[in-house]
Amino acid sequence: MRTDFAATRAMFHLPEGVIYLDGNSLGPLPKAAAARLARTVTEEWGEMLITGWNRAGWMALPSRVGDRIARLIGAPPGSVVMGDTLSIKVHQALASALALRPDRRVILSDTGNFPSDLYIAEGLARMLGGAYELRTVPPEKVADAITEEIAVTLLTEVDYRTGRRHDMPALTRRAHQAGALAIWDLAHSAGALPVDVTKGGADFAVGCTYKYLNSGPGGPAFIYVAPALADTARPALSGWLGHEAPFAFDLDYRPAPGVERMRVGTPPILQLAALEAALDVWDMADIADVRARAIELSEAFIAGVEARCPTLALASPRDPERRGSQVSFRHPEGYAIMQALIARGVIGDFRAPDILRFGFTPLYIGLAEVEGAVKILGDVMDGTLWDRPEYKTRARVT
Amino acid sequence: MRTDFAATRAMFHLPEGVIYLDGNSLGPLPKAAAARLARTVTEEWGEMLITGWNRAGWMALPSRVGDRIARLIGAPPGSVVMGDTLSIKVHQALASALALRPDRRVILSDTGNFPSDLYIAEGLARMLGGAYELRTVPPEKVADAITEEIAVTLLTEVDYRTGRRHDMPALTRRAHQAGALAIWDLAHSAGALPVDVTKGGADFAVGCTYKYLNSGPGGPAFIYVAPALADTARPALSGWLGHEAPFAFDLDYRPAPGVERMRVGTPPILQLAALEAALDVWDMADIADVRARAIELSEAFIAGVEARCPTLALASPRDPERRGSQVSFRHPEGYAIMQALIARGVIGDFRAPDILRFGFTPLYIGLAEVEGAVKILGDVMDGTLWDRPEYKTRARVT
Repeated sequence: MRTDFAATRAMFHLPEGVIYLDGNSLGPLPKAAAARLARTVTEEWGEMLITGWNRAGWMALPSRVGDRIARLIGAPPGSVVMGDTLSIKVHQALASALALRPDRRVILSDTGNFPSDLYIAEGLARMLGGAYELRTVPPEKVADAITEEIAVTLLTEVDYRTGRRHDMPALTRRAHQAGALAIWDLAHSAGALPVDVTKGGADFAVGCTYKYLNSGPGGPAFIYVAPALADTARPALSGWLGHEAPFAFDLDYRPAPGVERMRVGTPPILQLAALEAALDVWDMADIADVRARAIELSEAFIAGVEARCPTLALASPRDPERRGSQVSFRHPEGYAIMQALIARGVIGDFRAPDILRFGFTPLYIGLAEVEGAVKILGDVMDGTLWDRPEYKTRARVT
Repeated sequence: MRTDFAATRAMFHLPEGVIYLDGNSLGPLPKAAAARLARTVTEEWGEMLITGWNRAGWMALPSRVGDRIARLIGAPPGSVVMGDTLSIKVHQALASALALRPDRRVILSDTGNFPSDLYIAEGLARMLGGAYELRTVPPEKVADAITEEIAVTLLTEVDYRTGRRHDMPALTRRAHQAGALAIWDLAHSAGALPVDVTKGGADFAVGCTYKYLNSGPGGPAFIYVAPALADTARPALSGWLGHEAPFAFDLDYRPAPGVERMRVGTPPILQLAALEAALDVWDMADIADVRARAIELSEAFIAGVEARCPTLALASPRDPERRGSQVSFRHPEGYAIMQALIARGVIGDFRAPDILRFGFTPLYIGLAEVEGAVKILGDVMDGTLWDRPEYKTRARVT
């Protein structure tokens, strides 16, 4: 391995006494992000004021950071741009794809997709009128459901609950054979797995940055548009910063060349600054190493939990190649178990109705944490320590 | 006056040697925002990790901050929510309004509107199909153009270039008389003028926060929905955080009650934290006082510039009641003049093709700055100090 994981770990702030297995939901604070934000606030916003848009390079941040994300997902420079939230980027990709297949009316997705992707698709189909349909099938039926009716497939590579991983190149080929376009949501892929949108042939890809890319709560999303489509795709949400010449203040919209047209409004500079600093870790880390180490960690976790906790049922695929970087177990009292774990410093998360979810993020987590988490989970389950009223009162959790 | 402007001014960081007359584009750094961001990063993100969504109250921030904005625009609690960018919020308001007037097909706006509002309307009309039309008329023709064809008026109260102010209550009444809905963009109003969306009868209002509300570059936007419509308006961009129960992860979308349905994706917590701290100044400031003082300052500026600089032509309405909190002058060499001013520490901005724009923000600007700016502008014009090649090379400015 070329990646020095002790060195990458030293780049993060990790609280004392915590084993953090939820980097798949919110990555921890990179030390460089804290320092960068302080500089952006005091030296740029504070001292440069409005001139920061040019002098501090704020206006170029969405593209400059996009190019760094591009390297992690196999996209060429100039094909990724940052901004908004993942749901907004799903809407843009979907609306663009439908406009590129005007003779077709069906969006195909699956029941394992993150609900917001489905909600956005449902909302768009409704807005476009009765003829459009969002069709959802179980994940394992997707390949068979790709027929010549389908305008676009909208799939998330890694299932947010179980970690099940779609075969992205195979499904993309199948979509193209049927004349459909393929949109991939990489929320649980970017920074976790080797992704190659170019070889894989994705038409659009979208993702968030606050999970495996450690940009902080509410960090901006990204969108990739295949270069062959980028100059013809309609941006939808045609905001001024996607205009060919935003500062000409023309009354008519003309899309910018390429993926820049997917920009919408004024970019969130504070969040982008944190993200840019968070990406420094990738100058020292190789995604193939990260993936290999994540598999080691997750295999050790599964083996340990299955040995210690017979009432927890593995909800993730057993074959590590068929799952992402997280492992889930089912238990009817999953919520209370997770609360008991968190009270003991092991942070994973719960997904309704019964999923305990644990993420493995080698940039800052090693085998010692995995063994510690197995031991504490074992203690909680052996002693039914979760069976207390205070662990059963549900707060709103993410 | 009840507002102590020396006290409010002390709440901002203002760089040495700068006269900042561009708070209408990007407000300066509130000292509390810098401190709050540092806390949010190190104590919340750094220490609480994923549990910050509940423990630090992140999930409630868009509504909690929305309630504080509501007080500034005459909206009741629970009627404003934060998120995304202004362009996205324009899209949501417009799509919702059109769905509420399904028998009408025309969006009415004016040529003085901020281009992004027009671009978004144009994009939405195109997405909805050929029957929809964006109709733009000169600002002074808007009232007469509100006919029974119009589904919705989309107007910005204060013109971004000239500061011309629409009569919001009168145009809203006229829209309602014609059976249309009224959307108001308050980008140059919120925090600058007394606004009362309730008395004024606005159906939707949207705005940004990085201008007169000082949230920092790329701070989140707000959207207001009149309570009578909030439970029936379709959100458009139906993302998971606008769902009635986001953490149930249902496959079908059900909008949340009220304005919460206008939430889309994961909120930008770092930007929201800066904004929340920036709003503290309003605990000490009365918007009526701010408006009265801004008129004093702008009147002094106009008088001073007209006395010193006969080649600059006032582009703003002369009646202060008919303009917002900015004053604009035209000059064919406006770009170079503004560069020369900025080089001498007077920061305003330029808007193509020939507008020099100056904002008056009494929270941190007083008569001494106005007099200083007049003197420097006078020197620049008297000596044609702007007539140098280095001031004429256009960079991309905002």
